[in-house]
Amino acid sequence: MRSPSISYSITVRLEVPAGGSAVGELTSVVEAAGGLVTALDVAPSGVEHLRIDLTAASSDTDHADAIVAALEAISDVVVKKVSDRTFLMHLGGVIETVTKHPLRNRDDLSMIYTPGVARISQAIAKDKEDARRLTIKRNSVAVVTDGSAVLGLGNIGPHAALPVMEGKAALFKSFADIDAWPICLDTQDTEQIIETVAAISPGFAGINLEDISAPRCFEIEARLRERLDIPVFHDDQHGTAVVVLAALQNALKVVGKQLDSARIVLVGAGAAGTAVLKTLLHAGADDVIVCDVEGIVHAGRPNLHPSLTWTAEQTNRACLTGSLPDALPGADVFIGVSAPDLIGADDVAGMADDAIVFALANPEPEIDPGLARRHAKVVATGRSDYPNQINNVLAFPGIFRGLLDAQSRGIDMDVLVAAADAIAATVLPDELGPNYVIPSVFHPDVHEQVASAVRRVAERS
Amino acid sequence: MRSPSISYSITVRLEVPAGGSAVGELTSVVEAAGGLVTALDVAPSGVEHLRIDLTAASSDTDHADAIVAALEAISDVVVKKVSDRTFLMHLGGVIETVTKHPLRNRDDLSMIYTPGVARISQAIAKDKEDARRLTIKRNSVAVVTDGSAVLGLGNIGPHAALPVMEGKAALFKSFADIDAWPICLDTQDTEQIIETVAAISPGFAGINLEDISAPRCFEIEARLRERLDIPVFHDDQHGTAVVVLAALQNALKVVGKQLDSARIVLVGAGAAGTAVLKTLLHAGADDVIVCDVEGIVHAGRPNLHPSLTWTAEQTNRACLTGSLPDALPGADVFIGVSAPDLIGADDVAGMADDAIVFALANPEPEIDPGLARRHAKVVATGRSDYPNQINNVLAFPGIFRGLLDAQSRGIDMDVLVAAADAIAATVLPDELGPNYVIPSVFHPDVHEQVASAVRRVAERS
Repeated sequence: MRSPSISYSITVRLEVPAGGSAVGELTSVVEAAGGLVTALDVAPSGVEHLRIDLTAASSDTDHADAIVAALEAISDVVVKKVSDRTFLMHLGGVIETVTKHPLRNRDDLSMIYTPGVARISQAIAKDKEDARRLTIKRNSVAVVTDGSAVLGLGNIGPHAALPVMEGKAALFKSFADIDAWPICLDTQDTEQIIETVAAISPGFAGINLEDISAPRCFEIEARLRERLDIPVFHDDQHGTAVVVLAALQNALKVVGKQLDSARIVLVGAGAAGTAVLKTLLHAGADDVIVCDVEGIVHAGRPNLHPSLTWTAEQTNRACLTGSLPDALPGADVFIGVSAPDLIGADDVAGMADDAIVFALANPEPEIDPGLARRHAKVVATGRSDYPNQINNVLAFPGIFRGLLDAQSRGIDMDVLVAAADAIAATVLPDELGPNYVIPSVFHPDVHEQVASAVRRVAERS
Repeated sequence: MRSPSISYSITVRLEVPAGGSAVGELTSVVEAAGGLVTALDVAPSGVEHLRIDLTAASSDTDHADAIVAALEAISDVVVKKVSDRTFLMHLGGVIETVTKHPLRNRDDLSMIYTPGVARISQAIAKDKEDARRLTIKRNSVAVVTDGSAVLGLGNIGPHAALPVMEGKAALFKSFADIDAWPICLDTQDTEQIIETVAAISPGFAGINLEDISAPRCFEIEARLRERLDIPVFHDDQHGTAVVVLAALQNALKVVGKQLDSARIVLVGAGAAGTAVLKTLLHAGADDVIVCDVEGIVHAGRPNLHPSLTWTAEQTNRACLTGSLPDALPGADVFIGVSAPDLIGADDVAGMADDAIVFALANPEPEIDPGLARRHAKVVATGRSDYPNQINNVLAFPGIFRGLLDAQSRGIDMDVLVAAADAIAATVLPDELGPNYVIPSVFHPDVHEQVASAVRRVAERS
């Protein structure tokens, strides 16, 4: 069983006799059931009873039910109500709009709305660029999804994707003071998505595409970038690529190797994999071998999918063929953005000395991080319960903050590399080590440093 | 010259000698120039000077310039900077998004975002209706425009329309605690607008169409209503119609006449006029004559536009022909939603005794309200500087609040009439009079009373 998580936290309202010993039993009963008590609020309920709100972390919903059953089994304890903290938090959504100025009287109304607002409109009608100064377009980002590849849940549709996009908007605000609004699309047609996003773009300063499945995401992003005069960013691609590059730069420092001479085996040729490849090459990587479900990508592979032709041209100088295990011997770096349990400890043992393993499949990595650490010097995953979490949240808030501050009309590879450098630089030389190659998303400076680095590069171009 | 308005308010930063008499002159100079001083903030600036922020209302931008020139002409006074209060208020927009819960640490993150949010998504994937409970879809409205008919400014496009839509969103929040977000469309094609709004609808609980020109607005609204499972409301049509009906009910009470027997002349067959007509008929009006730019609408009029066929069938029982002045003699009610200065005092004099005149063209009414009052008992306009302002802000916040609370899937005529009744009822019998047939938008109860009336009707259907 996985260890208890706050994200499966329940609050149980209990009633117990005021005089009995039941209160003392509660915590030990929850712990015996494998739960973790995180809060216990006691209040009198009449003269003879106490009302207790017990909050406990559990491993999953079945486990939460088992904890409640264990509490019910204590004699004299009555369970009145069970609430799920995560669900409570999402009731009615996690974001809202607010007005920046109070609207108390006719004077306020005459400036915020008619007739005063007409002058703002006239100014923008004269010069469209003023919208970036006099409206929310100075600070607004659309978080756009079609619900086709949401988290690890797959194609769950736009309604089920909405809480994730809201969460993302909450991160935009909390980490970078950006006003993001979720746009969940009732279509998964490439053309219709492009047309819709283009149609709603005047009100936004940037577009963050999210959880749109490959290969549609490539065309959608490329065509929107060409068409719009605001930055278009696909977090699953570029966010991941930026954080991987940041972590890899620091990991290579730890082991004393160079990006341009390291042999890198990259597994996964989907949205994330393709973006990681392009970003690594742009940053100077020179010896990359890409593998997908059919094995090593090389120019001579039969029935090579057209999207892999470019990859075959840019990678695999040695013209290796075969499957993933054939690529690993002697490799300095393994980067997996693919599927669970693809490699074993022996594969890592066969890599070069001081190997680096980024096993980023989520929630189950390409190799158990414990196993990988037996032979690798630096191990990173996408999970928060191991050191070195590769988390997109390190990248997108600061990147958009920088782009918005520069009133940027687009985004290019230099911006992504600058963001990666800034993330990497927040790990100071005396902090750097095998278990700390990448900062926490709560690092006090990371988002601001990413923002200033991006702003500098964006203003130059 | 129009009287000074807060919406043309400027703040002038001045520097004057600390010892001189200049300070005393400032207010009188502004007043002599026709301005109105609303604030005077004085602070020392070094030992010999004072820094003064003088805020004054002016009539328009030329007038504001004249006031600044008058201040500059005072000896020893130096004008350092002029800021426009309305522009200052709109810098960066008038709304923002905020998170409802703080995001301070990994526990918060694990509930608001991953991994906890996945459980919310899974619940909605199982039952789409849960999105109305567990996401912003409980309380979100899209304020959608194509920028084709913005205020009185015409087709100024989506960027210039944005500050108006933001203002509208601010009103939604301030008066009804609704989270509205502006969607300004980069298309004016009917089909594309319908497709775009349908595509973005999953994230919203309602659609407020705004400032879309006729006749496209009719088809867009009708087809979206048919297609979507959330209410679609076109404020220029339905908002106006509701407030007109409310004011008319009270005005008829003042003069002791009945809606079903009053002869009503309605001028204007655009978005607002058509909606006013339909709503009046639904509420029981029985003797309506509609005029447009070509005169009285009747079945025998040559080249009758197809959109007027229905109007011709439903109105003008007496088969009147001719132009507007031919319709007015003996009429009990004039409602204009058309163009400036269409009728004169003589036309009103020819109406029935105790005539009611709603001259709603904005900012210049169909007849000067002062002239109209010579012969009419009740006069209403769209302007805030006369009694009886017909203002859509009375209707839309409460209507949407009621619809959202009822988790309504649509909106019908009964809802609109209920809203009008509720607005009318906030004017108590002992308050009702020729100069008070409709409440202020700041009436303490009006939005809540509209909301509960709408909710009751919506839950029934």
